Amino acid sequence: MFPYARACGTLIAALFAVVHAHAAAAVDGATIAQRGGAEGVPACAACHGAHGEGNAAGGFPRLAGIGRDYLARQLDAFADGSRQSPVMAPIAKALPPADRTAVASYFASLPAPQIGSSPPARVASDGEILAVRGRWSDGLPACERCHGPKGAGVGLDFPPLAGQPATYIAAQLRAWKTGARGQGPLGLMRAVADKLADADVDAVSAYLGSGAPAAPASADATRTADESTPRPSALAGHPAPTHFLPPPESAIPNNDFGRLVRLGERIFTDTGNAASQYVGNDLRCSNCHLDAGRLANSAPLWAAYVAYPQYRAKTREVNTYGERLQGCFMYSMNGKAPALDSETLIALEVYSYWLATGAPVNAHLAGAGYPKLAKPEQAPDYARGARVYAEHCALCHGQDGQGQRVGGTQVFPPLWGSRSFNWGAGMHQVNTAAAFVKANMPLGLGGSLTEQQAWDVAYFMDAHERPQDPRFAESVAETRKRFHDTPESLYGLSVDGHLLGSAPAPSRRTLAGTGQRDR
Amino acid sequence: MFPYARACGTLIAALFAVVHAHAAAAVDGATIAQRGGAEGVPACAACHGAHGEGNAAGGFPRLAGIGRDYLARQLDAFADGSRQSPVMAPIAKALPPADRTAVASYFASLPAPQIGSSPPARVASDGEILAVRGRWSDGLPACERCHGPKGAGVGLDFPPLAGQPATYIAAQLRAWKTGARGQGPLGLMRAVADKLADADVDAVSAYLGSGAPAAPASADATRTADESTPRPSALAGHPAPTHFLPPPESAIPNNDFGRLVRLGERIFTDTGNAASQYVGNDLRCSNCHLDAGRLANSAPLWAAYVAYPQYRAKTREVNTYGERLQGCFMYSMNGKAPALDSETLIALEVYSYWLATGAPVNAHLAGAGYPKLAKPEQAPDYARGARVYAEHCALCHGQDGQGQRVGGTQVFPPLWGSRSFNWGAGMHQVNTAAAFVKANMPLGLGGSLTEQQAWDVAYFMDAHERPQDPRFAESVAETRKRFHDTPESLYGLSVDGHLLGSAPAPSRRTLAGTGQRDR
Repeated sequence: MFPYARACGTLIAALFAVVHAHAAAAVDGATIAQRGGAEGVPACAACHGAHGEGNAAGGFPRLAGIGRDYLARQLDAFADGSRQSPVMAPIAKALPPADRTAVASYFASLPAPQIGSSPPARVASDGEILAVRGRWSDGLPACERCHGPKGAGVGLDFPPLAGQPATYIAAQLRAWKTGARGQGPLGLMRAVADKLADADVDAVSAYLGSGAPAAPASADATRTADESTPRPSALAGHPAPTHFLPPPESAIPNNDFGRLVRLGERIFTDTGNAASQYVGNDLRCSNCHLDAGRLANSAPLWAAYVAYPQYRAKTREVNTYGERLQGCFMYSMNGKAPALDSETLIALEVYSYWLATGAPVNAHLAGAGYPKLAKPEQAPDYARGARVYAEHCALCHGQDGQGQRVGGTQVFPPLWGSRSFNWGAGMHQVNTAAAFVKANMPLGLGGSLTEQQAWDVAYFMDAHERPQDPRFAESVAETRKRFHDTPESLYGLSVDGHLLGSAPAPSRRTLAGTGQRDR
Repeated sequence: MFPYARACGTLIAALFAVVHAHAAAAVDGATIAQRGGAEGVPACAACHGAHGEGNAAGGFPRLAGIGRDYLARQLDAFADGSRQSPVMAPIAKALPPADRTAVASYFASLPAPQIGSSPPARVASDGEILAVRGRWSDGLPACERCHGPKGAGVGLDFPPLAGQPATYIAAQLRAWKTGARGQGPLGLMRAVADKLADADVDAVSAYLGSGAPAAPASADATRTADESTPRPSALAGHPAPTHFLPPPESAIPNNDFGRLVRLGERIFTDTGNAASQYVGNDLRCSNCHLDAGRLANSAPLWAAYVAYPQYRAKTREVNTYGERLQGCFMYSMNGKAPALDSETLIALEVYSYWLATGAPVNAHLAGAGYPKLAKPEQAPDYARGARVYAEHCALCHGQDGQGQRVGGTQVFPPLWGSRSFNWGAGMHQVNTAAAFVKANMPLGLGGSLTEQQAWDVAYFMDAHERPQDPRFAESVAETRKRFHDTPESLYGLSVDGHLLGSAPAPSRRTLAGTGQRDR
């Protein structure tokens, strides 16, 4: 009896501590959670666990550490029927709005379960592939791309997946598919779920879910997104790919060459950590080259590799592929160029070469770069762009354009300011940015913006201050004359009275006074 | 009349000077040449010109400045009927052997006509293509490859073509074809002439010949060997090429990229001049990569380009193509590595990339490298190799292995000694050299040696001293242990009492005492 009594004592002490900690702001929330509310509302803890940790066997989700606004929004949705649940609907309806907020605050304040931080060495199951890599050939980003590493959750709108029961995750994905959870922000989850076949839902839920056996590893323990069996239901109606397909990750040989291929891929997808001495901002290569440089129309590496050496107007000389990569570090990464014989640069060359296996040398491949856009009917406009941004981009990149982080990881990249690409990067050109946005943004919804919207929002993004062009010479005017004298560059032009390129880039906030915002 | 008299006076003065200069050794030769010999031998000058300059209209060849031994051999051949000529046969027969030598000495001593030294900017006619580039797809080396730049003539066995009448050259080529001039040394000219169709003979003779109108330039002024219309008679029976074909030279674009392609080609074929600061010997890249890096089974650049980056046992790491090229300069060229971002290295990369246009990345192409040889039945042997060398190689590379020069140009490369590749070069390995020799040597007669002969002569070549391995560490024994511990390297082994790698490479002579010679 002693152990039981001690456990009870510990639980009671813990509850008191929690209640005490939140006594001032959220006493009602804690009370409701642990003891139930008025009008017969049962204690949340009954199903969601004493610490809000969820209940894997029953399929009840964890609530601990999930964003307050997100939780409150769910209670509101249960109450108004826009999210359907026979269990939660009467509970939510019975809770007055203030109580919903209180109980959401309470659970948001509870510590989230510890999630391991080291990624698995190899992607081993179909579910893991979907969670970690996505299936970009089907326009499907990885779960982690928005929900953060290990599904830790990002900001207010991308709740944690880690620690949720597999049955709960599967049920939610099916609810997105059937519309029982509506569209969700930007319709993202509806679009994602629509691309998942039943087997996909089971696999990814099993991988992400706690308390359920992991999906059995595939016979080939190194299969990747490219190799996962196409799901007829998911792929029905998709045209056969018309572009070059890089080799599957399983083809990387287990030798010194393969080691460099893998290192190159790691540098490409985790640039700030794997090549920290060359990176001066919070971007990674794969921010602008989706699916780790594999995706057609997202400046894939295989197409770039076979197009170099080439003459570049930017440098006014023929550059090798290695020199082109150096430019990425100097401008897009606002950092320093690795030496041509450094392991960093060689690994990226080797990775690109390997992705290009079988592609013809000195050819322009379909899917290279970003698909060029025709000039828009209306000249790109800052105010219209700001509205597009608020409606379609801020969800991920934030109202301030600074992206979103979780733990030490930048999940959504900053689009301007001191932690973004500098004025020498290709993406600072409105035509390049518009082409990228039209084809690839929002993640998983590429092509959904109109061309005019893409031009406008690209103009808006590129009309913000960012780090100085490292080729800066004498003055902004002279630098524009030498390097930016095109209609596509806003460097050296005034937007709402601010001379772009003239100020140190503000950090973690938008530049004040450079345009109207629509928030 | 004054000009005529002055010309006569000049002529007489010149003759006296010549006669005086050769009074001691060759008075008979000069007399015979200018006045005729005993037994009704007419003056050579009657047909071959007062200065031995030949007579284009009559088709009489120039004799001035042509090698004494070569001329004497021709007189002997006319006399014994092994070279057939109704005009020369009775004359040669009438001259006693000593007189033949005397007259040959006389004409050898006369100054050769001035031949322009700058090559044409572009290869413009079919004849020029054959003379300057060859038709390697048909196993046909360029005339200049053996007869030297501008057909200036090389050594004792490769007479000048420059300044010879086109009709004379055409008649000789047809005489090789019909056997009227026999096989010639190694059967080289017979083999070459056999591959020339009638139209080829006319074209190349017209290009090389003096006093005849040059062949009209092709409609496309930039056609090259690859593009010259295949001659049915020459190509009949040749199987269709089974290997990758690089693009024709006419496809090089006229822009900054194309400028680097051309620079790369020039560096490749004229390395000592175009990249002098990186070259420490008398080789050029195209010595080991025939047809300017285009020829299959001769380590063509297009096959190498798509095989890098790759892991190399030699460096124990993955090297990029640029780093591989650096190795060529350090070892094969016994020089210094150009920086990866130097114009020299970039031009070579660009040239290789352009040659590989359309080839698949990361593939092993047929014709790559040199075709590997099976181990020989008998272990490679120095003495047997020396005999093969004397019979098949010395004609071009010289009895001393130092190749042959004309003017400032090394026409045939030195195979050992201070002006050849060093102990770090791939060609110092017996298997590599044997594979190269079997497939490509003698020029235009690739495949004619047996495999055993190739192994033996490669062993002989690689058993000579050459410049130190730049990776030398501590001692020859230690250096062998670190870099040469294979059965294919003779570095650090003793051959006839000499420790290879232990002595500074002798210049312009063979290493004494390292083996028996058969000369």
